[in-house]
Amino acid sequence: MNKLITISREFGSGGRELGSRVARTLGFAYYDEEIIAAIAERSKLAEDYVKQVVENRITAYYPITVASTLSAIPSDSMYAINRSIFAAQTEILEEMAEKSDCVIVGRCADHILAERHPFRVFVYADMATKIARCRKRGEGIEDPESLTDKELEKRIRAVDKARAQYYRFYTGQGLEDRLNYDLGINTSGLEIPPLAAAVAALVKTF
Amino acid sequence: MNKLITISREFGSGGRELGSRVARTLGFAYYDEEIIAAIAERSKLAEDYVKQVVENRITAYYPITVASTLSAIPSDSMYAINRSIFAAQTEILEEMAEKSDCVIVGRCADHILAERHPFRVFVYADMATKIARCRKRGEGIEDPESLTDKELEKRIRAVDKARAQYYRFYTGQGLEDRLNYDLGINTSGLEIPPLAAAVAALVKTF
Repeated sequence: MNKLITISREFGSGGRELGSRVARTLGFAYYDEEIIAAIAERSKLAEDYVKQVVENRITAYYPITVASTLSAIPSDSMYAINRSIFAAQTEILEEMAEKSDCVIVGRCADHILAERHPFRVFVYADMATKIARCRKRGEGIEDPESLTDKELEKRIRAVDKARAQYYRFYTGQGLEDRLNYDLGINTSGLEIPPLAAAVAALVKTF
Repeated sequence: MNKLITISREFGSGGRELGSRVARTLGFAYYDEEIIAAIAERSKLAEDYVKQVVENRITAYYPITVASTLSAIPSDSMYAINRSIFAAQTEILEEMAEKSDCVIVGRCADHILAERHPFRVFVYADMATKIARCRKRGEGIEDPESLTDKELEKRIRAVDKARAQYYRFYTGQGLEDRLNYDLGINTSGLEIPPLAAAVAALVKTF
C-alpha cells in the first residue's frame, strides 16, 4: 500500500509549506490546490466556485454565475451541489492515494482515506506567528499590509472556523480533536525547512 | 545551555516509557519518581505524602501521620504545605536542568523551566489503548485485573483530571492546551520503542 501523509493545519501555521517540503524530501507526490482543480473538472463547476464550497465560504451574495455549467449538477439545490463536490473530492483523493506515495493537505483527507491508514499530522501555531506569516507570505490574503493585526487575526479565525465547520459537516468530528492525528506540530516562532526535514525523518520510521 | 525535554502525558498513554527510552537513546538524564524523593528530602515530608500532593490526590481521610516531620513546615495550613512542596519542586527542577541534558516527566516542568526553552512533548492515546496499557503494565494501579474496563476508565479519567487541576493551579494554564507543547504524539495502538527512537531522532534536529 502506498504511504500517505495527510496534513491538517491552522491558517497561517505553515502547514502547507511543511507538507510540500516533506513531500519533496521523501519523493512523494504533493496535492493541495490541484485537488480543487480536479474537482472542478470532474464536477463541471468553475474552479473558484468549488474553492468557495470546499472552504465553506459560500455566501448568499456569491455570484452564482461563476458556476458556469451549473445545469450539469443533477439537483439544483445547494445541498446537492455540496454533496456532488464532496463525492468528486472523495473519488479524486482515492485515486491520488492509489497512484503513489503522497502528501495531501486539507480536504478531510485524513478522514476520507482513513482505511488506508495515513500518517495524520496537525500543524498549529500561536496567533502572533500566524499573523507574522500572513504578513510575510500573504497566504492567499490580498494585500495583507493594508490590514491591522486585529483585522488579520479576525481573518485567520474566520478561515479556521470555516474549515472546522466543513470538517465537522462531512466527518462528524472536530478538526481540532487531537485523537484525529498521529502527530501535532507547533510551528510557533519556528522556521519551516528544518522542521520539515525532522518530520520527514520521523515519518520514515513509521 | 543543557538540552531539556519535558514530557506531559495522559495516564496510560506510555509517556513515561517514551521519555525514559528517549533519554536512554540520547544519553540524557531521566527524572520522574526521583523528583518526588528529592522533594520529600528537601521539604522534610514523607515521600508518600509528597506524592499525594504532587498528584493532587490529597483527601480529607489521608492519614496526616505520614507527614512524619510536619512541624518542619513554617505554616501548618495545607496551602502553605502545598506551596512549600511546589517551591522545593521548582528548586529541584532548576538544579536538574542545570546539571546535564535531561528528560523530565510531569511536575509542570514545561512551565517551571520555560525560560530554558525545553522541547515540550505531550503524549496521549485513545481510551482503549490506555486501558490495555494499564492492564498489561499496571502503571501503578494495584491489581488491575480485578477491575472492569469501566472501572479502569474511571481511574484513568480521575488521574488525568487531578493532574490537570494541579497544572492549572500552579501554571494558570490548561494541561491539554496544545500551544503549551512543541509536539503532540498519539500512541494509540502503537508500540513505544520505535516511537521513542523516532522522537529521539526528531529532537536531535531541534
